[in-house]
Amino acid sequence: MSVAVIYGGTRSNGNTEQLTERVISEMEAEKIVLKDYDIQPIEDYRHDESGFPRVGDDYKQLIDRMLSHDVIIFSTPIYWYGMSGTLKNFIDRWSQSIKEYPNFKERMAEKQAYVVAVGGDMPLLKGLPLIQQFQYIFSFVGVAFEGYVLGEGNKPGDIQEDVQAKFAAQQLQKKIKNELR
Amino acid sequence: MSVAVIYGGTRSNGNTEQLTERVISEMEAEKIVLKDYDIQPIEDYRHDESGFPRVGDDYKQLIDRMLSHDVIIFSTPIYWYGMSGTLKNFIDRWSQSIKEYPNFKERMAEKQAYVVAVGGDMPLLKGLPLIQQFQYIFSFVGVAFEGYVLGEGNKPGDIQEDVQAKFAAQQLQKKIKNELR
Amino acid sequence: MSVAVIYGGTRSNGNTEQLTERVISEMEAEKIVLKDYDIQPIEDYRHDESGFPRVGDDYKQLIDRMLSHDVIIFSTPIYWYGMSGTLKNFIDRWSQSIKEYPNFKERMAEKQAYVVAVGGDMPLLKGLPLIQQFQYIFSFVGVAFEGYVLGEGNKPGDIQEDVQAKFAAQQLQKKIKNELR
Amino acid sequence: MSVAVIYGGTRSNGNTEQLTERVISEMEAEKIVLKDYDIQPIEDYRHDESGFPRVGDDYKQLIDRMLSHDVIIFSTPIYWYGMSGTLKNFIDRWSQSIKEYPNFKERMAEKQAYVVAVGGDMPLLKGLPLIQQFQYIFSFVGVAFEGYVLGEGNKPGDIQEDVQAKFAAQQLQKKIKNELR
Repeated sequence: MSVAVIYGGTRSNGNTEQLTERVISEMEAEKIVLKDYDIQPIEDYRHDESGFPRVGDDYKQLIDRMLSHDVIIFSTPIYWYGMSGTLKNFIDRWSQSIKEYPNFKERMAEKQAYVVAVGGDMPLLKGLPLIQQFQYIFSFVGVAFEGYVLGEGNKPGDIQEDVQAKFAAQQLQKKIKNELR
Repeated sequence: MSVAVIYGGTRSNGNTEQLTERVISEMEAEKIVLKDYDIQPIEDYRHDESGFPRVGDDYKQLIDRMLSHDVIIFSTPIYWYGMSGTLKNFIDRWSQSIKEYPNFKERMAEKQAYVVAVGGDMPLLKGLPLIQQFQYIFSFVGVAFEGYVLGEGNKPGDIQEDVQAKFAAQQLQKKIKNELR
Repeated sequence: MSVAVIYGGTRSNGNTEQLTERVISEMEAEKIVLKDYDIQPIEDYRHDESGFPRVGDDYKQLIDRMLSHDVIIFSTPIYWYGMSGTLKNFIDRWSQSIKEYPNFKERMAEKQAYVVAVGGDMPLLKGLPLIQQFQYIFSFVGVAFEGYVLGEGNKPGDIQEDVQAKFAAQQLQKKIKNELR
Repeated sequence: MSVAVIYGGTRSNGNTEQLTERVISEMEAEKIVLKDYDIQPIEDYRHDESGFPRVGDDYKQLIDRMLSHDVIIFSTPIYWYGMSGTLKNFIDRWSQSIKEYPNFKERMAEKQAYVVAVGGDMPLLKGLPLIQQFQYIFSFVGVAFEGYVLGEGNKPGDIQEDVQAKFAAQQLQKKIKNELR
């Protein structure tokens, strides 16, 4: 059993990253920082006979790294009441993986997914559509949605004041460590 | 009064575009097809004293074109139960515009916004979080959310079978034409 | 195949009822007007060894009538962004039926469910949590959620101005008539 | 400053009540247990010239008690992915109070509202529409939505295992005690 973090933020050591660190402290986890890679937006060739053309970017490398783990933590700042465009572009490309990896869904269905998201404008209320979206996403590929934390933070470091989010992050940590055993 | 379509799809003449055409037929509308431009993901410099660095892409040109119109139609295929990453990257950058255009919100607040979205997996149910997200987005910048259409379609052309979406598109058309008068 | 309407409104010939009439015109349908009956709120005896005590109200009669049909239309005004308390009390009692009818879920799973709801405060946006709630309800008992109409109306008769809701009601009618064939 | 709990559950010392007790321990709070009173469903006379007829039940007494407090905690088991019908009937009647108390909204707008809700089927996901509904309700009357706890529990006492909900309840307690000072 091993853990990956798919990190969609654009600021180093931002609030979302700090909260995520609380989840994965005391365990080994591969952090995939999407902004450090070239991930092209999907071009929709699902209905083309010849399928998706090869895209010369880093996506394939990243999805393969993600698929090699058992627990996946999607970690994103809440930008405009949703996941970052960076993370969305990564997930949009799963449509391509579904075509190209015959067992993509089967492999996903064996994993566990978590979400860590931090926003500045009432995330416990206005972040709920994002959680519902993740629920639909995970349900589509059959991966179990094992838990999430919504934290509040605007200025760098704010998240340290959100004791409830910090506690919830700690609970996720315990849960994941239990799974890893 | 003038109309802009912000089109987030990646396929020419896709279902979303076809449905949107029903909304804007019989009126003049500037179509901004995001995939034809270079729009970099936001880098979050909101809290940097020196502000956002200049980004050498097409965003500024596009946001200026959008701001020059009174009615804005956000048109996106529903990818993974949300707007396309392409459109999300465009909206994420509004955080930069809010810093750089002192009156960005005031200008937005004078406009009217519409959403056209087409998805393949029960969009009338699983597209609802996307509509709620748009509601929060529009509310944040003060733009009036005047209406939306959710259509169902998977394979190219499917949308032509969705008579209810086509009727709703026609209703939006009437409403917008009324405003333009 | 036969059709039942479970009507949760409290006003005769209200907007919700008028819209629902458009769905069931041209077909036979049994209308169950909940306000005309005595339906006690659930008392939660799910975890009592002796089970639910007998309640001397009309619920059992009504649930039996509902179960005898194949298509069930839940029709409710949107009160405070949800179904009416009257309808909620009826549905809350399903917890009792699940205990008392060994095959309650199996019977529900063979049916088709529709929702007609009319509200005065932006129902197409603020009625969405209600639709999501129905989705969870129907999913729990395994009944297929075949469609819904959200209409706008405040003063009596307002619904006649909502051409889009009227069109959608007509579409539901066609769909149900097709099923009945 | 004083605190009221509007309790919508139907079981004594149920999970929801236990979790709510954690919020109000160490403070004085008036508990209004709705099931102990007669609250008739609303009959919609909003558009009648003569207004709402007098209803001979306990509602007026209860709403007056609620209005006399500054902090209101709505506490409900999650039945069928929503508040209990008992609580819904109470809130539905607010439409009557808005007609009969000229300053109902103004008085509500000075208060603070909290929600405590416990459900057995993934409340952190499937309880989200309920939270959104409360958000719309509170926003309509202008009361500030200051916080909520969603707990998980099915069998009596289960809630004691939900350490995250218990922690969140404690946080609400601290917040409210701070307000009371």
